[in-house]
Amino acid sequence: KPETRKPKSKRQRVTCPICYEKIEQPVSTTCGHVYCSPCINAALKRKKQCPVCSTKLGSKPYHQLFI
Amino acid sequence: KPETRKPKSKRQRVTCPICYEKIEQPVSTTCGHVYCSPCINAALKRKKQCPVCSTKLGSKPYHQLFI
Ligand SMILES: [Zn+2]
Ligand SMILES: [Zn+2]
Ligand SMILES: [Zn+2]
Ligand SMILES: [Zn+2]
Repeated sequence: KPETRKPKSKRQRVTCPICYEKIEQPVSTTCGHVYCSPCINAALKRKKQCPVCSTKLGSKPYHQLFI
Repeated sequence: KPETRKPKSKRQRVTCPICYEKIEQPVSTTCGHVYCSPCINAALKRKKQCPVCSTKLGSKPYHQLFI
């Protein structure tokens, strides 16, 4: 395990791209973007696509995520 | 946004259930468990199921995760 620090994710403190808060009840879309379950549900009522990358989301748009 | 502290995930520092390290190249299985991409690949060579919950994993066992 090398000592190099990669300036990528800061301790993986995942914030929701919709509400900008720490993610509550995390779910992941099939395209790999993570949201609060209520936030993505609300977004999908407006448009059936991923808010971050616009991937079309169909009948099974996301699954629960255990993080 | 209430001030209550829920004693759940500690700052969501997600560690890989296979190597116990911070997750590198995170992927999520369709059952919602998160691993390093190389770790889950190695596990799937041995058995086509999720190491954490034993869900059978088929042709598309996981997807990339942006956390
Ligand atoms: Zn949210
Ligand atoms: Zn997406
Ligand atoms: Zn790992
Ligand atoms: Zn699983």
